[in-house]
Amino acid sequence: MDRAWLIVDGIAALPNLVQSLPVSVVEIIPLGGVGEIGKNCTAIRQDDDIVLLDCGLSFPNEEMFGVDIVIPDFTYLLENKDKVRGVFLTHAHEDHVGALPYLLDKLNVPVYAAEFTHAMIRQKLEERIGVKGLELKTFNFGDVIQAGSLSVEPVRITHSIPDNASFAVRTKHGIVFLTGDFKFDFTPVDGKLTNITRLGEIGQEGVVLLLSDSTNVDRPGWGPSERTVTEGLSKVFREATGRVLLTTFASNIHRMQQVFDVASETGRKVAVVGRRMEQNVEMCARLGYMRIPANTKIRLDEISEFEPQRVAILTTGSQGEPMSALVQMSKGTYGRLQIREGDTLIYSARPIPGNEAAIWRTINRLFRQGATVIYDSPIPVHVSGHGYREELKMMLNLLRPFYVAPVHGEPRHQHVYLEMVEDMGYPEHRVFTLQDGSILQIHEKSAEIGPEKAPVGRVLVDNSGTPGITDEVLRDRTNLANDGLIAVTVVVDPEAGELVGDPVLQSKGFHGPDGALDTTLEVLIDGLNALEREDLVDVDKLRHQVGDLVRRYIQKRTSLRPLVVTTVVEV
Amino acid sequence: MDRAWLIVDGIAALPNLVQSLPVSVVEIIPLGGVGEIGKNCTAIRQDDDIVLLDCGLSFPNEEMFGVDIVIPDFTYLLENKDKVRGVFLTHAHEDHVGALPYLLDKLNVPVYAAEFTHAMIRQKLEERIGVKGLELKTFNFGDVIQAGSLSVEPVRITHSIPDNASFAVRTKHGIVFLTGDFKFDFTPVDGKLTNITRLGEIGQEGVVLLLSDSTNVDRPGWGPSERTVTEGLSKVFREATGRVLLTTFASNIHRMQQVFDVASETGRKVAVVGRRMEQNVEMCARLGYMRIPANTKIRLDEISEFEPQRVAILTTGSQGEPMSALVQMSKGTYGRLQIREGDTLIYSARPIPGNEAAIWRTINRLFRQGATVIYDSPIPVHVSGHGYREELKMMLNLLRPFYVAPVHGEPRHQHVYLEMVEDMGYPEHRVFTLQDGSILQIHEKSAEIGPEKAPVGRVLVDNSGTPGITDEVLRDRTNLANDGLIAVTVVVDPEAGELVGDPVLQSKGFHGPDGALDTTLEVLIDGLNALEREDLVDVDKLRHQVGDLVRRYIQKRTSLRPLVVTTVVEV
Repeated sequence: MDRAWLIVDGIAALPNLVQSLPVSVVEIIPLGGVGEIGKNCTAIRQDDDIVLLDCGLSFPNEEMFGVDIVIPDFTYLLENKDKVRGVFLTHAHEDHVGALPYLLDKLNVPVYAAEFTHAMIRQKLEERIGVKGLELKTFNFGDVIQAGSLSVEPVRITHSIPDNASFAVRTKHGIVFLTGDFKFDFTPVDGKLTNITRLGEIGQEGVVLLLSDSTNVDRPGWGPSERTVTEGLSKVFREATGRVLLTTFASNIHRMQQVFDVASETGRKVAVVGRRMEQNVEMCARLGYMRIPANTKIRLDEISEFEPQRVAILTTGSQGEPMSALVQMSKGTYGRLQIREGDTLIYSARPIPGNEAAIWRTINRLFRQGATVIYDSPIPVHVSGHGYREELKMMLNLLRPFYVAPVHGEPRHQHVYLEMVEDMGYPEHRVFTLQDGSILQIHEKSAEIGPEKAPVGRVLVDNSGTPGITDEVLRDRTNLANDGLIAVTVVVDPEAGELVGDPVLQSKGFHGPDGALDTTLEVLIDGLNALEREDLVDVDKLRHQVGDLVRRYIQKRTSLRPLVVTTVVEV
Repeated sequence: MDRAWLIVDGIAALPNLVQSLPVSVVEIIPLGGVGEIGKNCTAIRQDDDIVLLDCGLSFPNEEMFGVDIVIPDFTYLLENKDKVRGVFLTHAHEDHVGALPYLLDKLNVPVYAAEFTHAMIRQKLEERIGVKGLELKTFNFGDVIQAGSLSVEPVRITHSIPDNASFAVRTKHGIVFLTGDFKFDFTPVDGKLTNITRLGEIGQEGVVLLLSDSTNVDRPGWGPSERTVTEGLSKVFREATGRVLLTTFASNIHRMQQVFDVASETGRKVAVVGRRMEQNVEMCARLGYMRIPANTKIRLDEISEFEPQRVAILTTGSQGEPMSALVQMSKGTYGRLQIREGDTLIYSARPIPGNEAAIWRTINRLFRQGATVIYDSPIPVHVSGHGYREELKMMLNLLRPFYVAPVHGEPRHQHVYLEMVEDMGYPEHRVFTLQDGSILQIHEKSAEIGPEKAPVGRVLVDNSGTPGITDEVLRDRTNLANDGLIAVTVVVDPEAGELVGDPVLQSKGFHGPDGALDTTLEVLIDGLNALEREDLVDVDKLRHQVGDLVRRYIQKRTSLRPLVVTTVVEV
């Protein structure tokens, strides 16, 4: 049967579907990744079958003290655990796979991914929960994986990481297509091209809903190919008279490939610094995802054997992470490598919002040590892995979806994407602005965002790897961070109704006008002395009274709000 | 006598100075503002006379918990208090005047500033220390103010605030010229032009040292005039079908003037929201620094009387400050104004590094409420107040200084500025990269950075306005913010050498694996029970033992490092 949508003004219209199919509702439930950039995680449900596309993390914002990572709330999946047929991963970036160990810890379902993606996540799974008993299944592009009544077809598409997939999920109402992260790069570094023809065929077959990357929708035109970076690197590698350092994401395999290639062409040896980057280069070389030119790679401790203009160094730390090699180098505290006058650092990444200040501090420290930092160059030393506006339009042209919803974007990107598709002729009722937890219901002849919401939210994981930091804990931490704490201890003999000795007052992280603590102690002693016998019998009440007294006085005296921790000991 | 420098290849050379002048060293001592953007504060000393140019603050970075503002260390001035002849203010931006109340609190010296600058700082002085007894002296451009053996001549120059000054400080070795913040704006909104001719005359007279703004040295060409923003605003004001909101810095008087002008031309009324902005508009209208068109300004509670397309709203909050009107509007918690579908916000400012994430969150929340936010527009809705690279070169051409040092820039800007002047023909020995505390010594025939450093540093002021937050307090706050605290109380009878009752364990802001605190308490009780009688006699030792025991166990069990506050009570 030809399922091609009826074309109206160049855009597909919903066809009559085969009548014999049972009437099902297909539900799209984003558990993360819409209205935000990060923790991509989308469930697609048809009757009793659920597939999960991606399972990513996001990074904490500056208000989330002591939070290591943020993961989606998996309640919906756990409540429907017998229906989940598998997790399908588009690619190995943390915002698409980083929450997987936390899901698999609670729900052992098959994980489908391309070879490279599996190799990357296997490292992390082994570190956190081990891989024993897990069903890690590798797909090839072109496979169609049956998952209950749904099926998933990965289609190769270019991005800033190898083996990147889009997914065509076949439902009773047509194909739901998730682009994942993508750009149309016609000269990818690894030579593996987007299967544009297959995208067109899928468009012919009939896409009922497109879930499209929208990160770069506000950039007009077409983005440059990853390959263009070679020229920028080449110029620096040739012209720099000293050592060249380059920092990028440890997962940016294509960028690292270009560094090796350019180094080889310009007569430089390459040392790799930073645990994750070393791991990735080793693994990629082994599996054939990188081709290391002969006699190019050296160990860091070998660089002294070469003239500075014969050395290049690949390093982590592009986000100004305090423990990274680059940040330690900028502070002069990295034992294995000292920055020298004449060094050139290429900043070959983009700042993740929130990291800008830490990155600028790192760059400035490098300048202060005599290095030159190239962070904004007329010939680019970094390009985005996400397609620009015309690339997003090309995807729409290939797939001609009936319904459209932008994902992988903040509200500002969703807004601009909606304006774009409306300009392309989409009427409003065929475009959806989803939120995390929205349930988009696709019926035979219509679709709408249902009245219910799936339980969603950000689950905060602490530095020990334990999820579930509460709002109360965050509030206390905010208080503590701003104004420190005052610990008050009072000893009471409740039976006698008497205080035992003087109260003890300690502070940590507190700073205020001189003498504020001394007068606080005096006020507290006066307050305690004024208490009646019966006030001292009820220990809980006494604790509250003591806490209130100290809090109120400190706030009046200093306008600060340190956290007051009160202990009443009964003897 | 003609003091014009000998021109060598278009750049001035140091002349023979009049022999009868006594041989003095002129010292330039930046107490803040070099190698950083913020807390501009430069002392110039000749024999027993010191003038201070600017006295600014900077904003805390994200690692400075509970810090409200950062001010310079004034030790050098206080150690030489009888030599300080006055403070001269270039303009009323916080990074040039914000630390003044803290200086005047310790050292009452005359403050020289233009009328507008005085009007702005007077508000803040009154709020913090009062103005009684202060010597606030207003200068006119063209005045020459004698300050001991030095003299200071303010020269009008354009910037994003009225009455902005550069300073020519006459010393025995020639003029030290501080540009302050500047751009060459040939169509300033207030019509008050840079006195370019006077700059040329000063160049003729002989500038021994130029201290030049370098903030925008990495932007090629010429910056656009503030006036160009009118076009961008005008387009939005005309095309928006709903209300228009605009956020900018409360001190950006010219921007606010343009909002009133454009509103008047496009038939909109303007309401002003935010305390500081309301104050500034009122003050500027009164003193003639703004011209409010007739029938344009309304109160916020009057906006409901007008059609949405007849309303414009000026608001604070351009840095995503949590308590600002705009951020509260974006959260729907601002009682006096609700964001509605169809509203348009113009983001007419630049993010101060470190604020990006908070600003994007605000913008995204506004989109989510149905507003459109214009933050990056082909016709600019914001321009910088700092000159671009060719403007910096024009300043060098006018003044032809013998020595040059970039200020008002981070190391990356200093680096690029140095490259620029070297390209212009300056030899290396005539260009200085200063740091805060560097003492640049100008002799009769030479200049160099002296071996000594003035005491400098960042003085952290807390939310109560008390300066001097220590590194230890910051470290504790960092600890508390990350992992919270555990408070342990033990009661002991030291004379009997016995514990009294069980230890008490409380936590705040702590989060870790389930049961971690219970087992900690068990371990603590076991540990206490294992102590000998004599361990319980020495209370200080016991406190350390208890703290160590809890800290070590928690870290081993959870890999977290909460702050442990231990109280041992003797009864």
